[in-house]
Amino acid sequence: MNSLLVTGSIGIDTVHTPTGSADSVLGGSAIYFAAAASFQGPVRLVAAVGDDFPAELEAPFHRFDIDLAGLEKRAGSKTFRWTGRYLENMNDRETLSVDLNVLGEDGPPVPEAYADTRTVFLANAHPAAQLGLRRSFPDAELVVADTMDLWISIARDELMELLKNVDGLVLNDAEAFQLTEERNVVRAGRKILEMGPAFVVVKKGEHGAVLVHRDGEGALPAFPAADVVDPTGAGDSFGGGMMGRLAATGDRGFGGIMTAMAAGTVVASFTIEAFSLAALESLTREELAERERAYVSMLDVG
Amino acid sequence: MNSLLVTGSIGIDTVHTPTGSADSVLGGSAIYFAAAASFQGPVRLVAAVGDDFPAELEAPFHRFDIDLAGLEKRAGSKTFRWTGRYLENMNDRETLSVDLNVLGEDGPPVPEAYADTRTVFLANAHPAAQLGLRRSFPDAELVVADTMDLWISIARDELMELLKNVDGLVLNDAEAFQLTEERNVVRAGRKILEMGPAFVVVKKGEHGAVLVHRDGEGALPAFPAADVVDPTGAGDSFGGGMMGRLAATGDRGFGGIMTAMAAGTVVASFTIEAFSLAALESLTREELAERERAYVSMLDVG
Repeated sequence: MNSLLVTGSIGIDTVHTPTGSADSVLGGSAIYFAAAASFQGPVRLVAAVGDDFPAELEAPFHRFDIDLAGLEKRAGSKTFRWTGRYLENMNDRETLSVDLNVLGEDGPPVPEAYADTRTVFLANAHPAAQLGLRRSFPDAELVVADTMDLWISIARDELMELLKNVDGLVLNDAEAFQLTEERNVVRAGRKILEMGPAFVVVKKGEHGAVLVHRDGEGALPAFPAADVVDPTGAGDSFGGGMMGRLAATGDRGFGGIMTAMAAGTVVASFTIEAFSLAALESLTREELAERERAYVSMLDVG
Repeated sequence: MNSLLVTGSIGIDTVHTPTGSADSVLGGSAIYFAAAASFQGPVRLVAAVGDDFPAELEAPFHRFDIDLAGLEKRAGSKTFRWTGRYLENMNDRETLSVDLNVLGEDGPPVPEAYADTRTVFLANAHPAAQLGLRRSFPDAELVVADTMDLWISIARDELMELLKNVDGLVLNDAEAFQLTEERNVVRAGRKILEMGPAFVVVKKGEHGAVLVHRDGEGALPAFPAADVVDPTGAGDSFGGGMMGRLAATGDRGFGGIMTAMAAGTVVASFTIEAFSLAALESLTREELAERERAYVSMLDVG
């Protein structure tokens, strides 16, 4: 079985945008990833919440094809919380408050039954924790990590060690520039390849994504969207759609990853249409497939 | 004959980038447009320079398939000059000095033989001047204009009148936002359609371009480039490649314009590889066709 697993955060988000707000809604990298990936097959989730996690936020876990054996509800701990505000352009944001809570403690245990996982996504976390988790899956055929500016600043050595032990890295353009001291996405990606991975996917939000692969470079636009309600989780959904497709096809060549990025782009274009996971919760496989056909057709310029 | 004509500026540019400089080189919207378009067929040029225009800058006019009957060398006038500097990201720039010179005088006369032109590109100029030129081509089947922030600020009424008399508008994202007071490219484009044109092409520099058409929206990435020497003229080259393709195919439908935008994207990716028109001067049709095939293949994600 071509199993896909994600480890990352589950949190309670409060989000302000120029057009609205959502208070204490479900968020976190792992749940956006898992929900997006689940349209292409089952997803194993390894994450921890506190014993304060509200029952009403659990509904989405059951709406999607997500295996919850690795979801720990830790007694005596509190759930990760994040409050942020998007700027007028809906692409840039500022963090207003963060309470790491359970994310600041030891990571959740990986169920023994998951040791056979073939495709692993290490969502953003301290690179030392990601490296520990990576070693829980010695037989994984494809391991991809995400990271963030904080770890590039304060845990660069651990991040460099992680990069020697993953097949791919996903990060945004500002992070790629910070990591490499370049100001061009392709140059930055090529420098990251020298650090270990076989490919790097640079996310540019509303401007799409760029692939830097040992076999060449590619770029894809975002799906042109008029109605952006909340960009939170777009990057994690992109990762989920991409990894879901990679787990399904097993094609890690340049074209295979580009096609997987297209799948990620399309599912992320739904995520931003509503707060939290609401748009993914009401999305059908047929609607997703229809938009993917429209996206592929839009890019057929030959 | 499916004739293509461009009216716009020819200037002497001094350009500073983070990695180099070029002093008093050939520039201006019309020459970048015409050079890029000429790879797909002959281009008629209507533009004026002063009697100070150096003979050594005339070579590129003869290198490309450009009809120079409409190029006026005005006695007693001086050529337009522009000096600018690109920021570290190679996408944003600041103007250090501008001498309008002949561009501040009456426009060049349109040769009578050009009255039968079918496809016209009104490169950036005062919208009243663009409107006057537009009326010189009563039988044109496709008229597309470019504009800039200055005219949106100081000549909005004339620009609105122009928009009722063109088929398409090309502008960059910041200008689209300024014109519409929107902060989303698709929404901005839709508002511009209400002002008259059947389609709007929003240029986003290194992030590609977006088409907002009566029949839908589309987006294309820039060609992923590691070596950007000088972005000057990229947008005008994009316009030239796009209009050259539109003049050749006559297809103004959504797919036809997307395919034309792809041609513009690819020729512009050469322009930025050297200062001034140097990269286009050494470019062959075979090299251009090869990169266009690579771009089309890169976007084949079905």
